[in-house]
Amino acid sequence: MEALDYHAEERRKAEFDLEEMKIVWAGSRQNYEISDRMARLVASDPVFRKDNRTMLSRKDLFKDTLRKAAHAWKRIIELRLSEEEAHMLRSYVDQPAFTDLHWGMFIPAIKGQGTEEQHEKWLPMAYKMQIIGCYAQTELGHGSNVQGLETTATFDPQTDEFVIHSPTLTSSKWWPGGLGKVSTHAVVYARLITGAQDHGVHGFIVQLRSLDDHSPLPGITVGDIGMKFGSGAYNSMDNGLLRFDHVRIPRNQMLMRVSQVTREGKFVQSDVPRQLVYGTMVYVRQTIVSDASCALARAVCIATRYSAVRRQFGSQNGGPETQVIDYKTQQSRLFPLLASAYAFRFVGEWLKWLYTDVTQRLQASDFSTLPEAHACTAGLKSMTTSVTADAIEECRKLCGGHGYLSNSGLPELFAVYIPTCTYEGDNVVLLLQVARFLMKTVSQLGSGKKPVGTTAYMGRAEHLMQCRCEVERAEDWLKPSVILEAFEARAFRMSIACAKNLSKFSNPEDGFSELSPDLLEAAIAHCQLIVVSK
Amino acid sequence: MEALDYHAEERRKAEFDLEEMKIVWAGSRQNYEISDRMARLVASDPVFRKDNRTMLSRKDLFKDTLRKAAHAWKRIIELRLSEEEAHMLRSYVDQPAFTDLHWGMFIPAIKGQGTEEQHEKWLPMAYKMQIIGCYAQTELGHGSNVQGLETTATFDPQTDEFVIHSPTLTSSKWWPGGLGKVSTHAVVYARLITGAQDHGVHGFIVQLRSLDDHSPLPGITVGDIGMKFGSGAYNSMDNGLLRFDHVRIPRNQMLMRVSQVTREGKFVQSDVPRQLVYGTMVYVRQTIVSDASCALARAVCIATRYSAVRRQFGSQNGGPETQVIDYKTQQSRLFPLLASAYAFRFVGEWLKWLYTDVTQRLQASDFSTLPEAHACTAGLKSMTTSVTADAIEECRKLCGGHGYLSNSGLPELFAVYIPTCTYEGDNVVLLLQVARFLMKTVSQLGSGKKPVGTTAYMGRAEHLMQCRCEVERAEDWLKPSVILEAFEARAFRMSIACAKNLSKFSNPEDGFSELSPDLLEAAIAHCQLIVVSK
Repeated sequence: MEALDYHAEERRKAEFDLEEMKIVWAGSRQNYEISDRMARLVASDPVFRKDNRTMLSRKDLFKDTLRKAAHAWKRIIELRLSEEEAHMLRSYVDQPAFTDLHWGMFIPAIKGQGTEEQHEKWLPMAYKMQIIGCYAQTELGHGSNVQGLETTATFDPQTDEFVIHSPTLTSSKWWPGGLGKVSTHAVVYARLITGAQDHGVHGFIVQLRSLDDHSPLPGITVGDIGMKFGSGAYNSMDNGLLRFDHVRIPRNQMLMRVSQVTREGKFVQSDVPRQLVYGTMVYVRQTIVSDASCALARAVCIATRYSAVRRQFGSQNGGPETQVIDYKTQQSRLFPLLASAYAFRFVGEWLKWLYTDVTQRLQASDFSTLPEAHACTAGLKSMTTSVTADAIEECRKLCGGHGYLSNSGLPELFAVYIPTCTYEGDNVVLLLQVARFLMKTVSQLGSGKKPVGTTAYMGRAEHLMQCRCEVERAEDWLKPSVILEAFEARAFRMSIACAKNLSKFSNPEDGFSELSPDLLEAAIAHCQLIVVSK
Repeated sequence: MEALDYHAEERRKAEFDLEEMKIVWAGSRQNYEISDRMARLVASDPVFRKDNRTMLSRKDLFKDTLRKAAHAWKRIIELRLSEEEAHMLRSYVDQPAFTDLHWGMFIPAIKGQGTEEQHEKWLPMAYKMQIIGCYAQTELGHGSNVQGLETTATFDPQTDEFVIHSPTLTSSKWWPGGLGKVSTHAVVYARLITGAQDHGVHGFIVQLRSLDDHSPLPGITVGDIGMKFGSGAYNSMDNGLLRFDHVRIPRNQMLMRVSQVTREGKFVQSDVPRQLVYGTMVYVRQTIVSDASCALARAVCIATRYSAVRRQFGSQNGGPETQVIDYKTQQSRLFPLLASAYAFRFVGEWLKWLYTDVTQRLQASDFSTLPEAHACTAGLKSMTTSVTADAIEECRKLCGGHGYLSNSGLPELFAVYIPTCTYEGDNVVLLLQVARFLMKTVSQLGSGKKPVGTTAYMGRAEHLMQCRCEVERAEDWLKPSVILEAFEARAFRMSIACAKNLSKFSNPEDGFSELSPDLLEAAIAHCQLIVVSK
């Protein structure tokens, strides 16, 4: 029947070079080519089909995931793909799997927190997938507050072992991906106890299942925590629960790069600076910001295409109805999201630079920019993922009833994306960290300590408190300097107002708690400024 | 293990009578008792279990729905439940099913738009479920713009039949619940053509499937449109697609209460006032507003209970951590939603009164309050459902990672609720209708025509344009009159600003289109005022 290509017509109107924009988006021509090649590889392979994903029962979906993960692994080896290509291929397979945790958390944890010896023992097996690992940190009762974890690892000097134990219901490990059905091993975070002393939370490599028949080892209770939001989506992942009943592991399975327990049970801290952890955090959060721009772009792309094809009302003399994209109500909701996708893309690229900068400084033992870099990435992680999650849902709404159908792609995109707001730092908790940093920066303004990096604007305190917006006509908003100053003045004034109100409390913690909703707003304003300025 | 009942402790602190509040919420003691009885009936019946719903494949979920619908029907007959009790029982079964459309749309359409003869012929079969019907209005290309429907019903005077036909791809019926797999009949909305004349959209009773073997009748293509948002949720419903290839039905299957086609093919309008349709609309939207309060209350209830049990950070000297409900950041997001649930409950009750009032006036042929009642219900439908949809998601976020698990109840609640923003009038389209009504009301202010009902405040134009908010201290906000005046002044000033800007356009339609984002805001402000004032 009708086969008018409305998209061709819309694309013809573009005032920029489409091919060049693709490359700008990808970061480089080479990135674009890899991305394009991997996309075609996945799209043309029937094993990677996604169209039936939402129809499957949980069990069949899980089997489908195992099949895809194995097939991806096979293709990566057959085609001798580079690490970059392999990463891209997996991202186009686009189905959360235990492999994400094995490659993305288990191996990096051993690499980052393990000793040379531990690397030699565990990494080769992990690289060949002779063992499959997950990252068992979060507990039923403890997410954001990592220091509150209850699982214990008690050193037994008699046998030179740690005894891993779950003392309470709330201490059950809960959420780790790959744990429910697949993993043979886990990096388990537990309170280290030597003698009667609690040394806080440390990582331990624990075998969970037999390498012969995959059954749980004695003392270990393990299982899947059940269905999550949506159909398809994250249900391809075996998020799991795990309980230990006095499970014994050799002493050398504590990850000992930063702290050690000696044969005698003595707790020793190495001289490896603990700040190194923050370097990794900056890296992980940079990838999250980049991923946010991709998820947002997918949603905006679907909603924009739909808006060009969909017509409703406004037919004159029996002619076609008005394209939905021509309605101002649609534009005023859709176009800011389109702009945000690009903004997040560019701020993600800038974060790559920041990571390089921080890494170089860390190698030179310069920790001076770390607090600012940490606050900046925490804030951007929070802001971009919150905006993206809400924006995907807004794009779904912009597709009217059709956005509610799984085949629009939006329901799964939403359901699979939203955990990003919770993992790697709950978005509200992160913003409160940013707020603390802002209050500290404000409090030091008088002391002559110059604010650096993304807080440099606070150095122009007097100007920002007094300046008035010069906009008189709509066109004035087209000057980037006007927008930037508006965002700076807003962020700064909000921070100053919070600081002023905080100073009225005799106990600063009471003040912080009482004013936290305002502090959140100030932190958001600061993060919005960062995005605008990059 | 730990079994502290944090809820008991929180409930003990309530400063109101819990039992009385239950009755206030239910509307009356009798309502409460019916509701409570039906809830227990459903909860104790294993056929009605919901805990495995999200795990099922689409096919098994659908079978489960058929089983539940049949069982509910059986119980309703066995227990001789009243219509009210039966309705309540079905709402606790809480699983969208073809029966919703059969009882809620198919039968009412015949009742409302059919003649006495048609009632006698069709209703008894429908009541006994010897036939099962759905409501086939929306098409692939036509949702909000009902007048744009493309399906045709062409009268053939030779055979005294209508020929129902789908002339284009976009004319395919798309979305009707109950259509995909179950319905034997449908009320089909199609353009009535007699001779060469198009008389616009009318309803027709069309048999779709054989009553012997349930196969589609000749000329009919029918099927399910596939998965929708979420697991479980609305996927228990067989939303369908339907195409007609010159399907013939007898003339007497056009619903002829308001318009008729004679044996000779003459189109005749009866003297039944068309405004009666609006009475039904007021009724349907009133139920939607009541349902919004229920959905919101469920979400808020889950999030509040979670917030009381969940503890994170703030442990002092090894004591328990802080209950999440004690954080201001949690309170500032949760409590307004809690308040909204009550507000929507009370505005829903007020809408019942409005419906009675409108009905009585219609019976006395007084159509004077209809435009205002129509704008008011359209606006409240839009506002309460949009707020509720977003609030369910906000409640999910307030439960941190745990809200992402299906067993929190929130993912399904969200997925099953959100279509409410689209059906019975897309929320944006409805707000634009409200905005049109507001602009009309403003334009008549000078003419001496007094604004009525929910627009009565506009009669105090001068005061509202000049008044200044008297709040000086936080406590001043506790005066309802202060809040009410603030909402009135805001809504009125926004309307006036829009009207002023509209007047600058030579073509009012161009202005309306150009200013539609502002008009939406003004409409929302007006609707918020209605909720505050009730």
